[in-house]
Amino acid sequence: MALEEMALDNIKYDDKGLIPAIIQDINSKEVLMMAYMNAESLEKTLETGTTWFWSRSRGALWNKGETSGHFQYVKAINYDCDGDTLLIKVEQIGVACHTGARNCFFNELVEQTNRENEVDITILEKIYNVI
Amino acid sequence: MALEEMALDNIKYDDKGLIPAIIQDINSKEVLMMAYMNAESLEKTLETGTTWFWSRSRGALWNKGETSGHFQYVKAINYDCDGDTLLIKVEQIGVACHTGARNCFFNELVEQTNRENEVDITILEKIYNVI
Repeated sequence: MALEEMALDNIKYDDKGLIPAIIQDINSKEVLMMAYMNAESLEKTLETGTTWFWSRSRGALWNKGETSGHFQYVKAINYDCDGDTLLIKVEQIGVACHTGARNCFFNELVEQTNRENEVDITILEKIYNVI
Repeated sequence: MALEEMALDNIKYDDKGLIPAIIQDINSKEVLMMAYMNAESLEKTLETGTTWFWSRSRGALWNKGETSGHFQYVKAINYDCDGDTLLIKVEQIGVACHTGARNCFFNELVEQTNRENEVDITILEKIYNVI
């Protein structure tokens, strides 16, 4: 575990002692959720092999799945080039979102592809008008 | 654009006026990077169709790819169940990381799968010893 301990020194927590952890389904590759870890929750995650987070609203550690049974079994943990974000690949039991959705990102702000199509049509119309 | 404007009201910025944005490759589904946006950078992202972030270290807006040419063309923007994280699916030109790596998460904290195998071997050894 020497390498892991060395790597832990590279993790940079913010001024609140937290680091964002992106949770990705190792099979489907969908991004399931994002939550925050502190040093203790990262240690418990490494220890137990399931994800532990720090709830900013409740001010407490939580083990994802503890009440719902929807545990996340950790398959790999990576950190980014500046060490201030974690990417955790998991095997998700049940669903990731407390709303019952498979992942937390079900709200669409904008489907850019449609807007591009609109632009394309406008350009075609302009060309058509010129012709 | 009425729906988009309504959805923008659901976005919750933190006490520094920032929201984390996870950038995912729409084709390979790999998580490329995470960076922060403020309201202005999100607006510029919507406006231009490429990603704009707020650099916390430089205290300035930056358009990803502006100097490197490695633009990210936005294909979809989603926000999570509590509106405080963005998931942006992009078409990545070149590489996402300033180090030249395809994505920023090339550092491995722990490859959990190997640890599981270790545990399995330990259990098998124990069973073997009992037998």
